[in-house]
Amino acid sequence: MAKITAVSPLAPAAFPALPVIGGVKFAAIGAGVKYQGRTDVMLATLAAGTVVAGAFTRSSTRSAPVLDCQAKLGYSTEQGAAILVNSGNSNAFTGKAGVVAVEAITAAVATACGVPQMRVFTSSTGVIGEPLPYERITAVLDNLAAIAKEGDIAAAAKAIMTTDTFPKGACATVEIAGKTVSIAGIAKGSGMIAPDMATMLVYIFTDAKIGQEALQSLVSAQNEITFNCITVDSDTSTSDSLIVAATGASDVAVDDNTAFADALHGVMLDLAHQVVRDGEGATKFVEITVTGAATNADAKIHAMAIANSPLVKTAIAGQDANWGRIVMAVGKSGAAADRDRLGIRFGDVEVAKNGWRSESYSEEAAAAHMKGENISIGVDIGVGSGTSTVWTCDLTHGYIDINADYRS
Amino acid sequence: MAKITAVSPLAPAAFPALPVIGGVKFAAIGAGVKYQGRTDVMLATLAAGTVVAGAFTRSSTRSAPVLDCQAKLGYSTEQGAAILVNSGNSNAFTGKAGVVAVEAITAAVATACGVPQMRVFTSSTGVIGEPLPYERITAVLDNLAAIAKEGDIAAAAKAIMTTDTFPKGACATVEIAGKTVSIAGIAKGSGMIAPDMATMLVYIFTDAKIGQEALQSLVSAQNEITFNCITVDSDTSTSDSLIVAATGASDVAVDDNTAFADALHGVMLDLAHQVVRDGEGATKFVEITVTGAATNADAKIHAMAIANSPLVKTAIAGQDANWGRIVMAVGKSGAAADRDRLGIRFGDVEVAKNGWRSESYSEEAAAAHMKGENISIGVDIGVGSGTSTVWTCDLTHGYIDINADYRS
Repeated sequence: MAKITAVSPLAPAAFPALPVIGGVKFAAIGAGVKYQGRTDVMLATLAAGTVVAGAFTRSSTRSAPVLDCQAKLGYSTEQGAAILVNSGNSNAFTGKAGVVAVEAITAAVATACGVPQMRVFTSSTGVIGEPLPYERITAVLDNLAAIAKEGDIAAAAKAIMTTDTFPKGACATVEIAGKTVSIAGIAKGSGMIAPDMATMLVYIFTDAKIGQEALQSLVSAQNEITFNCITVDSDTSTSDSLIVAATGASDVAVDDNTAFADALHGVMLDLAHQVVRDGEGATKFVEITVTGAATNADAKIHAMAIANSPLVKTAIAGQDANWGRIVMAVGKSGAAADRDRLGIRFGDVEVAKNGWRSESYSEEAAAAHMKGENISIGVDIGVGSGTSTVWTCDLTHGYIDINADYRS
Repeated sequence: MAKITAVSPLAPAAFPALPVIGGVKFAAIGAGVKYQGRTDVMLATLAAGTVVAGAFTRSSTRSAPVLDCQAKLGYSTEQGAAILVNSGNSNAFTGKAGVVAVEAITAAVATACGVPQMRVFTSSTGVIGEPLPYERITAVLDNLAAIAKEGDIAAAAKAIMTTDTFPKGACATVEIAGKTVSIAGIAKGSGMIAPDMATMLVYIFTDAKIGQEALQSLVSAQNEITFNCITVDSDTSTSDSLIVAATGASDVAVDDNTAFADALHGVMLDLAHQVVRDGEGATKFVEITVTGAATNADAKIHAMAIANSPLVKTAIAGQDANWGRIVMAVGKSGAAADRDRLGIRFGDVEVAKNGWRSESYSEEAAAAHMKGENISIGVDIGVGSGTSTVWTCDLTHGYIDINADYRS
């Protein structure tokens, strides 16, 4: 792994103070899965009654831990549950050995934590195709279970990092019927980011009380407009996993509660943005909003074509208001467009209107916007009312540095 | 435009000696469209009777010159024809002014060369969205027409370059019925390369005698397995144009002639490979062959997902046999795959078989192949008999250098 020590210039000032979620305990430890001198395994134990929902990559080459999690989501909540995550090795494309490793780890977690194996969810992140040395993980489980305590979520966020330059956390509290419901989440991810159903590794905990179907439905819907609307490099991981656990410790029922849905949306969007802000080599955070497309689906196709275009991303890195490349990306996307109705803006600067450079266009004003850290690009297709907003980062020398020798 | 003076390390040793094509004359001149101190306009005049076929970008934001060419392909061949190309400005996304420019240029060419305006084909390549200063072109047309002569194709190849680091030419001769038929072609292109129907700018001339429908059918078919199988950066130009002109000067009829089809294929593939070899920042020429897909179309989807993956391309730049990223790209492509049947090779080195690292895998042998200039990647999907071969290059710091300040 390349030594990239500098923290992303787009990182938040500090890891946020996350609320303690009743019914969840955390522990992190260095098991030497691959890395030395840092934590690389995290455990979260979940009280009896905890409801678990999730969303996962749709990659046809997804990993054994992902397939295992997907099979376990709807299981009875009568007893406790646990989440175990390692970094350094993704246990992906490891054939039968991958299944053996998941079986060994989930069995050991079940024993150490006193929960059913069907309620043990695991994720692995790191290099693809190398056998996972799972004995290094099972060897530390008793120790991990013993030291787990409420509130230690920051340590968990650090243990799941790979090429991340900062740990990612977000939270929300919402008052419902005179009581407080809390949500706290962590995430990892900075490259191989173009989620398709879920993304990277994300774990969100809440003390809300909610049924499994209601939580799953909410998570799936919010996932579509948060994690599924970000991209760093158009490459989709084989390990993308989002798990949301609701312990019910607040005793506040939130099925169909809009305030809770909004709060969860806020936490998911915050974490999604942090993943983009830690995009490999990123120096600019870019929001792309497409309006006037034939459908919302078409708007997202256009927005993602812009967000994933190497020529658009390098122009942004160069602080160049190169709107011709936006035209190119819309043209190649495959979604409906009419060249002569297209409008484009950078920030508040109208660049193009009705298929040509705007009469009021000021290269200086556009250039000034491009020099900022937060770039906003608006594109109006002019053929309908479909809209979509996605988020990405620029493509820089830093991305090449990180990825040209990741394995060495 | 960034000053990139070094010639691609993958360039051919020299521009080839191209055969003279009877019935075609060339001229090149410096009109100062954007660049100074170099030629930037080329003219090819075609004798009466010349048949013209072509293929063009399917971008929904394609340029005025492209739309104009597409409307003119089937016109009567009774009189002569002409092709005029400028570099430095693509006349794309220029609204009505773009149409006005094409009208002015084609009218002036028709007058200067004594051919019908319906037989004047133009291309423009360079920056998108800037009005084309077409008066600079019309001002030099009489001079251009006067100096045009047979055999000056090398000068034409140089005049159409933009970020290209070398001019591109290819040729073939084939003996048919005791006579010689010649083919000579030139191309430009090094970035914004992921053709969708045709590619970049390519002009091929032959003295073969062939009907318009037969030539168009042949060009369309060969285009699918040559230019439409290359990619540099997944970005599709708004100006992609391929024009093939057959003068008939050899008096050899080639309708349905396999030897001629093979020779044309060879010229097209040679030019397509040269475009990849001049890929912006390229240090490796990469051939990706997918076998065992459900269909040929699925095979191409897999191959292009691998060829366009930033993580695969940076790994190749880093000479890293990172086959996990091949697995990732197959998984995200959307085409059918079975993780546990997947096989992968780098050169002759079997890396993975039946969904896991091959037992015979030698990291050293794979690494040795990755150190070469020509990289060969084979992927067997294991679910059917569909195949596809595509060509691309690596993604390096050079690409960022060139594209982060193209307009400045």
